[in-house]
This record gives sequence, C-alpha cells and structure tokens, in this order.
Amino acid sequence: MQAYDIIYKKRNNEELSENEISFIIQGYTQGKIPDYQMSAFLMAVWYSKMTPKERAQITYEMAKSGKKFNLSSIQGFKIDKHSTGGVGDGTSLIIAPVVAAAGGIVPMLSGRGLGHTGGTLDKLESIPGFSVMLDEETIKKNLKDIGIVMTGQTEDIAPADKKMYALRDVTATVDSIDLISASIMSKKIAEGMDGMVLDVKTGKGAFMQEKNDSIALAESMIEIGSNLNKEVFAYITDMNQPLGRAVGNAVEMIQAIDILKGKGSEDIIEIAALLSARMLIMCKIAKDMDEARLIVRKMMESGKALEKLVKMIEKQKGNPKVIDDYSLLPGPQIKETVVTPKDCYISDIDALIIGSSAVILGAGREKMDSKVDHGVGFVLHKKVGEKAEKGEPLLSIYANDQDKLDKAKMKLIKAYKFSDKPITVPLLVYGNVTRRGFKKEIIQRP
Amino acid sequence: MQAYDIIYKKRNNEELSENEISFIIQGYTQGKIPDYQMSAFLMAVWYSKMTPKERAQITYEMAKSGKKFNLSSIQGFKIDKHSTGGVGDGTSLIIAPVVAAAGGIVPMLSGRGLGHTGGTLDKLESIPGFSVMLDEETIKKNLKDIGIVMTGQTEDIAPADKKMYALRDVTATVDSIDLISASIMSKKIAEGMDGMVLDVKTGKGAFMQEKNDSIALAESMIEIGSNLNKEVFAYITDMNQPLGRAVGNAVEMIQAIDILKGKGSEDIIEIAALLSARMLIMCKIAKDMDEARLIVRKMMESGKALEKLVKMIEKQKGNPKVIDDYSLLPGPQIKETVVTPKDCYISDIDALIIGSSAVILGAGREKMDSKVDHGVGFVLHKKVGEKAEKGEPLLSIYANDQDKLDKAKMKLIKAYKFSDKPITVPLLVYGNVTRRGFKKEIIQRP
Repeated sequence: MQAYDIIYKKRNNEELSENEISFIIQGYTQGKIPDYQMSAFLMAVWYSKMTPKERAQITYEMAKSGKKFNLSSIQGFKIDKHSTGGVGDGTSLIIAPVVAAAGGIVPMLSGRGLGHTGGTLDKLESIPGFSVMLDEETIKKNLKDIGIVMTGQTEDIAPADKKMYALRDVTATVDSIDLISASIMSKKIAEGMDGMVLDVKTGKGAFMQEKNDSIALAESMIEIGSNLNKEVFAYITDMNQPLGRAVGNAVEMIQAIDILKGKGSEDIIEIAALLSARMLIMCKIAKDMDEARLIVRKMMESGKALEKLVKMIEKQKGNPKVIDDYSLLPGPQIKETVVTPKDCYISDIDALIIGSSAVILGAGREKMDSKVDHGVGFVLHKKVGEKAEKGEPLLSIYANDQDKLDKAKMKLIKAYKFSDKPITVPLLVYGNVTRRGFKKEIIQRP
Repeated sequence: MQAYDIIYKKRNNEELSENEISFIIQGYTQGKIPDYQMSAFLMAVWYSKMTPKERAQITYEMAKSGKKFNLSSIQGFKIDKHSTGGVGDGTSLIIAPVVAAAGGIVPMLSGRGLGHTGGTLDKLESIPGFSVMLDEETIKKNLKDIGIVMTGQTEDIAPADKKMYALRDVTATVDSIDLISASIMSKKIAEGMDGMVLDVKTGKGAFMQEKNDSIALAESMIEIGSNLNKEVFAYITDMNQPLGRAVGNAVEMIQAIDILKGKGSEDIIEIAALLSARMLIMCKIAKDMDEARLIVRKMMESGKALEKLVKMIEKQKGNPKVIDDYSLLPGPQIKETVVTPKDCYISDIDALIIGSSAVILGAGREKMDSKVDHGVGFVLHKKVGEKAEKGEPLLSIYANDQDKLDKAKMKLIKAYKFSDKPITVPLLVYGNVTRRGFKKEIIQRP
C-alpha cells in the first residue's frame, strides 16, 4: 500500500477501505508519511468529502493513534459535553458540576480558546493553581472520588489529531465537517466517554454561521458516535450575540460561580440547564426532561453543584477560596465603562466582533501559542432586545493595557446596533439533532 | 501576504491575483513556502481549476523562477515542437532536422521517458557521446551555426516547475490540465522560443485518453501562449496504437535515420511531415501547407535533413558515424521474434500495453531515477489493419535479459487483437486547435 494511491483514490471520489484509512493515519502519526502527502490528502477530503463509513473509520484510527483511557473500572455511564465554540460560552463550568452533583460521572475533556472563541481550559486556569493537564491515573481517581474531572488533551491522547490539526491549520483545511467531527470525536473516544451532549452553535460568532451547516456537523458526529457505539445528542443553539454577560476568562469563571450561587445571566443558565438535563437522561438519572430539569434546578438551588465545583477545584490543585473571594482571581488594572449613546433598544451585539475584540485585549489567542491574559475581558450590561437610556452603562472593558483597551473599544463599538423601537429577540435554541435527524425545539430567550 | 490565504482563496474557487501567484511560486522555489502548503495548493488547483488569466500568470512565474534564455541575438523566429507523449513517437528526431534544413531556427527542449511513454532525450542518448545537457552559450552558438539544438531542461531553467513536478508526482496532482500546460509552457518560455507546434496525443497510449480532454489541454496551452505572446498551433493525433514501427531508444533513432534516408514506416512520416510543414508556415518559410509540404519532402529526399542531423550530432559531441553504421548504437544481446498465431487482420495493438512492456525490458522508466537500457525495445512488423498469415513475424523483441524478455512478452501479447475480416483502420489525425478552437482535419493512415 502507498500513500499516493490513497490520495489518488480519495481525489477521484472513491470510498477508502478500512485498511487504507488505517494506513494513512497510523503512517502519518508514526512519521512514515510526510506532511506534504497528508496535506494533499486532507485537501482531497475537504473537496471530495467522506462517507459515513469513512468518517467513523478515520475517527477510530485517530483515537487509536495514541493512548485510550480505560474507564471501565469506574461504574456508570461516563458522560461528556462538547460545544463547537462561541463567545461567552462558559456553560461547561456550570454543567459539569451540576451533572456530577446529581450523580453523573463527568470526564470532561476541554479545549483552549482560539481566534474569537473562548476555551474552557483557559477559564479554569484563571483559578490560581488549577491544573488542567492530568494523567490517566489522576483522572480515574478523581472520577471515582467525586465523579468529575475537567482536563485537557494530554500528549498521548489522539496524537494523530494533534498532528493533523496543526497541518490543517496552515493548509486551509480546517473547515471540513468530516475532519472537524473526526477531530472532536477521536479525542472524546480516546478519553473513554460513553456518551456526549453536543452544543452546536450557529450564527455570527459560531464556527458554522449557517443553521444547515450546524445541523450537518451535528449529524456527522452523531453518526460517527453511532458507528462507534457512543451515544450523542445535539442541540443547535444561537451564537449571534455572546452568551451570558461575561466574555473573558476570570470574568466567565465568576459568572459561573455566581450562577451556581443562584445569581447571574439568564440565557446562559437556560442553555446550561437544558444540556445538563439532557445529560441526566442519557445517564438514566432522570427518565424525562421534566424530571431532569427539576433535578438540575435542585442541584443549583441547594448549593450541591457549587459544592461539587469546590471539590473539583481542590482535587485539581486550585485555590477553592476563589469561590468566596473573587479578588483571588486575576483582575484588570483598568476598567472602563462604555455608555449607551441614546435612548434605544439594543438590536444587535455581533458575537464575532466581541470575540475578536476580546482577543485584542489578550483574553483570547491569535495563534495556538499566544499567551492569554486571564484578567481581561468584557461585562455586558445590556443584551439584545433590552431597553437602554442614554448614558446608561452598555458594557465594561477590563484591560491591563490602555493601548489594547483603546483598540478593542474602537472595534467592539461596531458590534452594536440600536433601534428606536422594541425588537423581536432572537431565539436561544433552534432544535435538537438525534439519529432521527433534526427536530425543531424552540426555546425563547428568557 | 501569506501562503495560507492563497490556498484558502483558491480552495474557495476565487481567482488569484498576479501578486498572489507570484508570491506562492517564487516563495516555493526559494524554499520559503514548505512542501506541505504547496501540495495543499496544488490539490486545490486540481479541484478548483484555474482561469485563463491565472494559468498565464502561473506559467510566467514558473518561467521566471530561474534563468530565461535570451535568444534575441539570433535572427529569425525560434520554433519548437512538443508532444504530450506517446509510444514510438520519435517524430522530433525527424522534425527538428527537417525544419532546420529548410532554414528554421529550432531550439528544441525535450524530455525523458516516464512510465509507458518514451522521451526524445533518451533516444538521442543512444548515440555514443551525444550530450543533451547544454548551457546557454552552447545552445546559442549551435543555433547560430547550424540552426538546430536538441537539449534537456538544465538545472536553472524553470526550477519552480522541477520542484512542483516532483511534488505533484507523489501527491496525485499530475493530471491537471492547468498544471500540465503551465509546466510545459513555462519551460518553453524560459528556453526563449517564439512559437511551437504542439502534438496532443489521444487514445489508449496517450496521457489524455479522451479526445475532448486532449482538445482542452491544447486550448489551455494555446491560451497561455497567446497571453504571453507566443504562437502555439496544435494537432490532435491518434495514440491508440504505437506510432511507427519502432519502440525503444536506439531502435527509434535508427528508424528516424532511415526515414531521413527515404525509408521507413508510413504513419510516423505523415505526422512528422505535417508538424514540420506547420512549423515552416509559422516561421514564414512557407506561405501555405502545400508549399510547406513540398519543402519538407525536398528536405527529406535531398538528404539535406539528414545532413542537418549529422551536423547536430557532431556539434553535440555524438559520434556521427552511427548514421552509416547502426552497429555503433547500443544493441540487444537477445532478439526474439513473435509470430502471428493465425491468418488474420491485426485489429488492435494497445499502445499502453506496448509502452508498459517496453518499460519491463528497460527501454523506459518506472520512476524518474530509473536507468534506461538504450539497446532494447520492439520492432513492429505488423500494424493495425494489416493482413498477416499464420507464422508471419508479428513483432521482434530486443532484450538484454531473458527474464525481462519473457515478462515483457507475456504482457505485450495482450496488446494484440486479431480479426478474421478486414477492419477499418483508425484515423491518424483528428484535427487541429488554434485560438479559434478545434477544427476537424482528418488525416487517414497511409
């Protein structure tokens, strides 16, 4: 077998065999197939696409390329949650403690922010001492002890994915539904999960701007899961404006803690509750959404979810005192509040522009190796549809550099649109996707 | 400017600017752009294709990547000929001396055989001492002195093409009309020609099996030429069966010399005369095809073309005595003649199978760095349409290794089909292509 023939076959739109996919993925991981052949192959996949069988196979091979965690010694259904990335999307910080508090086993494998989208690991790392790089033994121990762990992709998890992603990043082959789903699912499978709730964002600040593309991505991942015996349930949710009222790292951590204390922004609670409830059903802790939502509310109101978060912070070497003293978290040296220019209704807050402005501040990453400033970001005082009077606070900018603040401000102003009349607030959730396809499930913003 | 953005733009089917094409071609040649980005770019070109403007620009940049010969000190229209490759296609060995004998200036840049197709340079190198790697000074001097030079692509001619071709060869991006035409034309332009006759082969033994693809390739090259102020005239000719009666290197050289002496196989003479005549018109040596064909015949019958060949061999350090003594050329140690199995008409000789069998003998190359045996090959005693009696010689195999001979024989037998009844002989020439498009111009086999 030769890499050339596999590239040629894919390029001619023929379905690759299991052996061929195994050959190219393992060969590439082991350095036997050079980058220049892999990049031609990836571009051929970008154009010719993959069949469901090929997608499952490439995912399986990517997962197999490194270590596979064996969580079978831990009782129960291991459930994870994944979001395709957005602005202000700190739901994982809420969901994982809630589900674990309700008795779920949550090995959550998270990522870092890139471009305008934030990353759960960066938000967690705003907690002094918190470690997100855990080995298999620690992961197992923590899951056994407290049912929750939030960790990053270790070096030995799906190395094929790591190598392929780096190559895709410089060869314009990132935005392939086949490759995105294989990348995500390979890591999740290597990590040992049994099932996952998937939050596919759609809209201006999402990776997929079109709803149909978001649905296609969800379908692809569900199909891969189904082929590899993993349950996946997806929601298609809105990412036209940022979720919640915080954009950044420490600010989003604070928002999550506030929510687990019973305070905070409404739309992000709605999404967190929805995804948590669905996870409880998948874990068979609840039999339907009504019961599941009731449990979720109880976990949040009783403080049990917050307690779980505290335990996780302790286990992962973070300082649990941050829960009661936010001044222990990195903060900004400069705070500036932008005010509303006229009496109006907020008609748009472009999530892409807000996310990109956050990168200017240093809250996000331009490139994979950029450094993140955990103390900076935005707090949105007004969201789309809300009424605002002239001079009322619109948003606050947290910065550590006046220059960056000015640049970010120049940019983010363009994110806002104002209307004289009340506007129709955009939907929060558009529907769900299962093996039976897309089903409308409208949830309005609260 | 970044290579990433250029790949991304091409991938999205947008037209690249002159600057962008210049950036990627010169950057790659200079080693600033890595192979893995170039291979992704080439695959994107394979799928998305190029516009005429892009094709002209990439050709120009590839030509510009190295040395450009300046032949302006040599008076007259510098004319070249190019064939897209076939089996037994030794026409260049006849055409160049004929056109030069008639007063044309012929800087002919030729290639080596690859796969089942033969190469003019290999055929010339069967002449002891003959040098095909000449520097600019020698090329100019020879053109001034005798009006003819047959040479290979030197290191400094279109290095971008050399590097890109090597990459295409291992990433399944060879068969792109855009890239093929750019590759050929960039070398021809760097070499300093003013115009060219193009012989696009079509059929089983050709690079393009379908006539429409052959026409498209011709059109692409004519268009590039026109954009870069070079005249290109193309013929679409048949390559279902081998051309002429010799397949190999020394055997094809001998056939060419025989033809210039007034002997030899008919179809190859017809093609050689047609292309030579067209070149004479382009050089303004003849005003129409009737006059041009008359001059061509005169050059062949008078021995003037043969004289030109002798002069060229002398100038390029070959032994001119081969003209009169074929035993000075490398020959085979073993000759075996395959006989006709029954009274019949030959209904097919598959050029692809014959060419591949020649590679087994060692007459051609599997890979670019394979070594060629100049003494081996085939002589076809019967061609398609001819009547043969049982036991009559069908073809002779010239070999230097019994094993290879046996293997080649096993294979080439499959090339032949026989019919009890007379068959319609396939056409020799299908038509020509100019800036006005394809025009039927049927030439029957003689």
